[in-house]
Amino acid sequence: MKGTIILKGNIIDTPTKDQFRCVENGYLVAVDNEIKGVFQELPAEYAKEEVTDYGNLLIIPGMYDMHVHAPQFVYRGLGLDMQLMQWLETYAFPTESRFSDEEYARTYYRAFVQTLKKNGTARAVVFGTIHVPAAEILMDIMEEEKVGGFAGKINMDTLCPDFLREDSQQSVADTREWLERNVSKRTLVKPAVTPRFIPTCTSQVLEGLGKLVKEYQVPVHSHISEDIGEMDIVRGRYPEYAHDGAVYDHFGLLTDKTVMAHFVYPAEEELELIRDRGVTIAHCPQSNGNVAAGIPPIRKMLDMGIKVGLGSDIAGGYSPCLFRAMSEAVYLSKLKWLESGKEEDFLSVPEAFYLGTKGGGQFFGKVGSFEEGYELDALVLDDTSLSVSLDHFSLTERLERLIHVGDDRNITARYVAGEKA
Amino acid sequence: MKGTIILKGNIIDTPTKDQFRCVENGYLVAVDNEIKGVFQELPAEYAKEEVTDYGNLLIIPGMYDMHVHAPQFVYRGLGLDMQLMQWLETYAFPTESRFSDEEYARTYYRAFVQTLKKNGTARAVVFGTIHVPAAEILMDIMEEEKVGGFAGKINMDTLCPDFLREDSQQSVADTREWLERNVSKRTLVKPAVTPRFIPTCTSQVLEGLGKLVKEYQVPVHSHISEDIGEMDIVRGRYPEYAHDGAVYDHFGLLTDKTVMAHFVYPAEEELELIRDRGVTIAHCPQSNGNVAAGIPPIRKMLDMGIKVGLGSDIAGGYSPCLFRAMSEAVYLSKLKWLESGKEEDFLSVPEAFYLGTKGGGQFFGKVGSFEEGYELDALVLDDTSLSVSLDHFSLTERLERLIHVGDDRNITARYVAGEKA
Repeated sequence: MKGTIILKGNIIDTPTKDQFRCVENGYLVAVDNEIKGVFQELPAEYAKEEVTDYGNLLIIPGMYDMHVHAPQFVYRGLGLDMQLMQWLETYAFPTESRFSDEEYARTYYRAFVQTLKKNGTARAVVFGTIHVPAAEILMDIMEEEKVGGFAGKINMDTLCPDFLREDSQQSVADTREWLERNVSKRTLVKPAVTPRFIPTCTSQVLEGLGKLVKEYQVPVHSHISEDIGEMDIVRGRYPEYAHDGAVYDHFGLLTDKTVMAHFVYPAEEELELIRDRGVTIAHCPQSNGNVAAGIPPIRKMLDMGIKVGLGSDIAGGYSPCLFRAMSEAVYLSKLKWLESGKEEDFLSVPEAFYLGTKGGGQFFGKVGSFEEGYELDALVLDDTSLSVSLDHFSLTERLERLIHVGDDRNITARYVAGEKA
Repeated sequence: MKGTIILKGNIIDTPTKDQFRCVENGYLVAVDNEIKGVFQELPAEYAKEEVTDYGNLLIIPGMYDMHVHAPQFVYRGLGLDMQLMQWLETYAFPTESRFSDEEYARTYYRAFVQTLKKNGTARAVVFGTIHVPAAEILMDIMEEEKVGGFAGKINMDTLCPDFLREDSQQSVADTREWLERNVSKRTLVKPAVTPRFIPTCTSQVLEGLGKLVKEYQVPVHSHISEDIGEMDIVRGRYPEYAHDGAVYDHFGLLTDKTVMAHFVYPAEEELELIRDRGVTIAHCPQSNGNVAAGIPPIRKMLDMGIKVGLGSDIAGGYSPCLFRAMSEAVYLSKLKWLESGKEEDFLSVPEAFYLGTKGGGQFFGKVGSFEEGYELDALVLDDTSLSVSLDHFSLTERLERLIHVGDDRNITARYVAGEKA
């Protein structure tokens, strides 16, 4: 976007994951969607520019949903007292098959994307269904609604119901055609190669997708080492590989543009592989409990230097709001702390905030922080409804309370890629 | 309340904990605050009475918050990445001391009670502070706002900051005077004897309170076996008693009008004691994670026939909404299922709903269900905002989604003790 945007308010971000950076009554300046900095006093060179004054409100970076299933929005909040396979068969597969109907896709994807937007998500990495037309509808709607990121036509050609099973060759051919048509088509939304997960993809498909990733230099989005049952299937099919990571790597699917959801049960050498390949892990705390997967060792990943962001994982998770994911990341890490005999420190609020902003943001480029040279993704938050009086609270306390207690009602304005949207 | 109330809509409750009872487009009839039944066709005898038609909305029983700290509402959502003692010293104790100021108490207790009300809570069991005037203000406000239940001036005379420590004799004397003045003063709100927990009460206070409970036949509200550190203190002070339950029982504090929060680490014989005394356990899943206590064996308690309800435990929990407690009870039980090697079945949605309605409701008398002879506590829920279309969903699916995804915006009307309020 061309032009200068200056926002005035209480500006908070996390350039480093350990602590909040706060500027009370400060100025956030961006020129042509490039942040110039956060200033206590407005630099003289911008003195004649228009300032949008948000008063006592909070201004934070955009939030990023690193793993979300668009079609599952239809049945979010349902069947969460089932076990995983029963849930997939009752809700996921029948619902996904409806997206062969373009009209249905248009209606539900619009509702889905508008819900992400209302909840403050700036950009997302999104699973679609196997259907190419629906995937393109999803991408168009994301672009229109200014929810940036990546979306995927998914691949599955085994271990799934007949009505959703692709022919292996066709699956790869369709993906190629879809990439060709969409890789440069939009500004904010690009395609990501999206094998559902290893159990539902034959090696023929994984190999074909690996080649496409190399050819088109596009991101990869899938699930990794989420659940013991899933991992057992993968071990059975690929006895020569010790873990999910090794299988994905064999097929060329682990790159620094790969995001993998969950990683609840990583092997030691799998952690190193993921770090060395520069893969981003999407931590989805609400889903980890809902599908009874377990608690991933997020502290360990952070200590090792693995890139981690947060995901809603709708509909394994039911809430599209990244505040919830931040809050629940802390919550779940406290149970991990107990589980580990108080060895693995739980996450702090700044760390959870970092994961939901810059931690995920790095996957899309320079977003999720107000450092110089970053794009302008921002949210303006009004927390006056949450307290009788704000007098007693510091800026970081106000933000902390918002993370735990706030919802879409507290979002006053949203900027994506230098544009109010 | 005198008069006949007839509500028409989709009526759902859980007379038994295992399944929903649904009457689509049914009639809920109450005369003088006594439910006559749920009917598919309106009985002829009520043909001339006024019917409030809620159309396609859902009508459920009231929800009951079995453990909540009113003063901690001031700082809900803060310090949840601290450890328990740091959190108490930073937030709980300094905040509670402010309630010596009656004006402060009036302002914040009003906001607290209105928040419970807005979130659909019909009745609650509420911790106050040590201050008698503030406790009476709290009770008055609850009565005015039609949030029924029990509230307590709390007792603490050891292991707490000087500025909140009571003289032991005075603590009991103040409680007696407060009981005397309040035990029959209000219709909906009564006093409960509320020792903070064993560590902060000398045996002199516990003994005195036990006598008052017997004399005034009032309920007891406290915490039990929540946390290893807390339990170690109790074991050290009372080596002759094997668990918290035995200590409370020694002082006559376990009756069928006792509610105890948490019970994360019950001993086998403590479970039996709690069941045999008819004590109700307040399960607070959000708090159990936030304060890193652990996961209580709720399935085991239910299997043993222990009475269990749900609590928000503000501000160990940050959400006052019992829907959240239901949702998180299922979530946490799934992690317990994993922790137990898949031995302890996780909770179903009807079970979690039962806990939040009839499970807690039994503590207040006959409320929390639409069975004949029960009082009329009810909520009317509008879920149209949660779906593009409700066509595909059964009534129980609609309720399930509301539990996970809904909030105060979905509450259209609230009835307490036969009155719209």
